[in-house]
Amino acid sequence: MAISSKIRGLAEQGSAIRKMFEAGIALKAQHGEDKVFDLSLGNPVAEPPDRFHQVLQELAQEPRPGMHRYMPNAGYNETRRAVAEGLKAETGLPFGMEDVIMTCGAAAALNVVLKALIDPGDEVVFFAPYFVEYRYYVDNHNGVSVVAPTDDSFQPDLVALESMITPRTRAVLINSPNNPSGAVYSAERISALCALLEDKSRLLGTEIFLISDEPYRQLLYDGLSYPHVFPHYGPSIAVHSHAKDLALPGERIGHIAVNPAYDDRRDLVDGLIFCNRILGFVNAPALMQHAVRGLQGVTVDVSDYQRKRDYIYGELVRMGYTCFKPQGAFYLFPKSPVEDEDAFIEELQSWNVLAVPGRTFGSPGFFRISYCVEDRVLEGSLEGFRRTARKFGL
Amino acid sequence: MAISSKIRGLAEQGSAIRKMFEAGIALKAQHGEDKVFDLSLGNPVAEPPDRFHQVLQELAQEPRPGMHRYMPNAGYNETRRAVAEGLKAETGLPFGMEDVIMTCGAAAALNVVLKALIDPGDEVVFFAPYFVEYRYYVDNHNGVSVVAPTDDSFQPDLVALESMITPRTRAVLINSPNNPSGAVYSAERISALCALLEDKSRLLGTEIFLISDEPYRQLLYDGLSYPHVFPHYGPSIAVHSHAKDLALPGERIGHIAVNPAYDDRRDLVDGLIFCNRILGFVNAPALMQHAVRGLQGVTVDVSDYQRKRDYIYGELVRMGYTCFKPQGAFYLFPKSPVEDEDAFIEELQSWNVLAVPGRTFGSPGFFRISYCVEDRVLEGSLEGFRRTARKFGL
Repeated sequence: MAISSKIRGLAEQGSAIRKMFEAGIALKAQHGEDKVFDLSLGNPVAEPPDRFHQVLQELAQEPRPGMHRYMPNAGYNETRRAVAEGLKAETGLPFGMEDVIMTCGAAAALNVVLKALIDPGDEVVFFAPYFVEYRYYVDNHNGVSVVAPTDDSFQPDLVALESMITPRTRAVLINSPNNPSGAVYSAERISALCALLEDKSRLLGTEIFLISDEPYRQLLYDGLSYPHVFPHYGPSIAVHSHAKDLALPGERIGHIAVNPAYDDRRDLVDGLIFCNRILGFVNAPALMQHAVRGLQGVTVDVSDYQRKRDYIYGELVRMGYTCFKPQGAFYLFPKSPVEDEDAFIEELQSWNVLAVPGRTFGSPGFFRISYCVEDRVLEGSLEGFRRTARKFGL
Repeated sequence: MAISSKIRGLAEQGSAIRKMFEAGIALKAQHGEDKVFDLSLGNPVAEPPDRFHQVLQELAQEPRPGMHRYMPNAGYNETRRAVAEGLKAETGLPFGMEDVIMTCGAAAALNVVLKALIDPGDEVVFFAPYFVEYRYYVDNHNGVSVVAPTDDSFQPDLVALESMITPRTRAVLINSPNNPSGAVYSAERISALCALLEDKSRLLGTEIFLISDEPYRQLLYDGLSYPHVFPHYGPSIAVHSHAKDLALPGERIGHIAVNPAYDDRRDLVDGLIFCNRILGFVNAPALMQHAVRGLQGVTVDVSDYQRKRDYIYGELVRMGYTCFKPQGAFYLFPKSPVEDEDAFIEELQSWNVLAVPGRTFGSPGFFRISYCVEDRVLEGSLEGFRRTARKFGL
């Protein structure tokens, strides 16, 4: 009775990554930190860029009165303006500060957006493989999760999507670069997706929002440029975080951006600010808002992640694994060499290598590894991958 | 259609303070910042203690690898341990780090606690006057708010409470020192409240939690010591924030503490950590966790707030206002000299003084002023209070 029946049920379903986390702790205690190759977590090994450290020092050395106080729930105007300027430069669209709300990271941003949009029973569609928390976030606000498939390149399957849109569809939620697949949704696919949403909205007399979850937007490889959703669709909202581009996941700093071309954006932004408040986020952390103001567009060394991708992708493919080559983010999502990926994960774990089963992301038969780790961890994992591949006949 | 019907409804009800906020902006634009005496917001004028600035400088000057990364969702063990040590010293109870969860402020903490406890339709009782956000927080998690009265000294009315407890009562939520009344609940009243909850739990075969919202715990006057709930009741949970004691409201740093004497605390803490994650808080901001670790028990100059209390309380009473003398926090909650306090607030506003109507806190016929402002604002407000008193025949 210590916790509600509802939360007990959710927590039991959601224990896969937690079990992995606990297995990791046990393995490390047993064999030593350096003998365990933990590829299960998306906790970036990169340190924040030097400029972040400089800015933080300046802020700490010259405290200004009021700099840690409450500010308007949407954040400091100067920070909102800086984010808007960045988005304007990236997209060519007329973003203003009033289109931006600073948030406690992308997880907060998504909850704020869903809270503002969903009436009980409304449906939110997202694509498998998906970020594990989406189901919880939709449920937090009494929405219903609907999972649509992707194709062989992990791009949204629009034929399937079409059949899944109903009069209760309130939003489609996409995540590109994708966690866990590393796919970047192409401009063509996004454009076609938006055309479909426009048709369906008209047909059903509803408004279907497109929510684009973009924490990995700056982590693109091979010179790819980012296909934004905004030019394609009015009722679109992007959420972003500095967890990955500035390597600040623990600091909880991100934002929501609303399409300046969306007619009802004043109303929407007011609702978002209100939800940011009543959900208990209140405002994004003040000091981090001061810090990121001048760091829009600054990123960690993306080429280092690309090098890690090339290394681990190359090695796994050489061993016979079948794997989509990631275009962004820092995950690899290979096929399990055996249908039941839990058996694969278990065998891998017996070699002290930790990965996450694909079913956690709604895609059984796959597994996820995070390559945002030290090189020695990637190198050390190879033997486990090799022996496990051999065991399952690759 | 830009926002859900539900949020539209809530936002419209919740517009009283917002209207005041907007009126303030308009008045300041019209008459100049220094001619408007805004006592409507609980945004402390105190700056963080010097030691906070020193600690922040040290952290910024000597960045350690990984200090901005994810940590376990409950927070850094070292910070949890420091908070537990502080609570142990304050209460004499055997708090350990495993009884503490770091959160994005007290607002986050309350949402996490309510999410973990409430099954849809469960009731949460709190006392009027209450912090305006409670109704939203309970509703966020599909709970039902039940408002109980207080007596003339703003202490919980236990006779009334008894009749309001039902088989669906999941928690009683108290807030002492109280926003808006400034009352500190006495040890006797807390003890009697806890005895009542124990009886009722036994009788009904339910478990009723006591949630103590304590952001103002360190802001006590006249040498008062804080009556903790923990010694009186097993299933008790306290939430705290450094918004007021360290003057860091914008930084969103606080914690949840679970009674070490509560039998099912492991289960409860697991549920709280899980809810902290799935609500999108993920973890309390990393840098602030590093900063507050060594600042447990450090506070702003409380005597300065006491001086402000004495000043504004004395002046208003001299003018004929009827007012409870606050024992803590930084609000005054006088009786409106006219039954409809909106008329009072309006007249006051015509003298460029901003206060909040009591109905916002569930107590019509009163008004709230925040005295956590510069002395010149308090001084400047007197004429408005004097003239308004006269107008309404005080």
